[in-house]
Amino acid sequence: MPERKANAEWNGTLKEGSGKVRLGSGLFEGAFSFATRMGDEPGTNPEELLGASLAGCYAMALNATLEKEGKPAKSVKTEAQVYFGKDDSGFKVSHIDLVVQAEVDAIEDEEFQTIAENVKKTCPISKALAAVPIKLTATLGRSKTAS
Amino acid sequence: MPERKANAEWNGTLKEGSGKVRLGSGLFEGAFSFATRMGDEPGTNPEELLGASLAGCYAMALNATLEKEGKPAKSVKTEAQVYFGKDDSGFKVSHIDLVVQAEVDAIEDEEFQTIAENVKKTCPISKALAAVPIKLTATLGRSKTAS
Repeated sequence: MPERKANAEWNGTLKEGSGKVRLGSGLFEGAFSFATRMGDEPGTNPEELLGASLAGCYAMALNATLEKEGKPAKSVKTEAQVYFGKDDSGFKVSHIDLVVQAEVDAIEDEEFQTIAENVKKTCPISKALAAVPIKLTATLGRSKTAS
Repeated sequence: MPERKANAEWNGTLKEGSGKVRLGSGLFEGAFSFATRMGDEPGTNPEELLGASLAGCYAMALNATLEKEGKPAKSVKTEAQVYFGKDDSGFKVSHIDLVVQAEVDAIEDEEFQTIAENVKKTCPISKALAAVPIKLTATLGRSKTAS
């Protein structure tokens, strides 16, 4: 099975230094720093990369599961909102809100909600993030051409 | 504390469709598909994004911890190797190898190894990934100008 790589570096002190992250595919290299992670300076941060991993995985997994159930989606859109905070154990990802919109014609909302909730348990990245509470809000849309 | 976002979408069937992921910072948007995730077609995948999140977070956290201990690093380099596999529970991130090289002059290897292992327990992203076995291999280097 695939092995995927990414690398990073950090140079200098925590507050004055800076880091870089690179995807193994070579498609992205981004700079980050204390100010881009803890504040609002432009740059990337580990939390948005984690969010992209989850959003991408969940979108693919929900689509695949709906297809397997004979209720294919026309599209699935996801947004991961990753909350970074501090408690007695130090800095942590406190929780993630996963907001999902799927366009599926031939399904009732109850069945859709059951499938969407179940995919949270089967999506490889949400399984990897089992230590973090993930709150799912899934909305079912219909295509405009459907009755 | 900061809230970070990322979003994704998937259009079409699992095998023929395709997805996109976008970082909330706007710094990266990448396409992925069944073939870029499960095979070797060019493109990104959720696993390398997860690896970048961990590699970046760990590099920053190890640096910060060494600095706090009065043993500042000149540089920290990390590589996350994310293994994606399948077992009875379906597809999953089976394990991650985290390979770390740090250039620190004023530290013995034993203390360095203890700190590096401890940072695996305090780095916010490795805490979030507590469900995945992470094998750390940390190597201590010295700068060439040191005695």
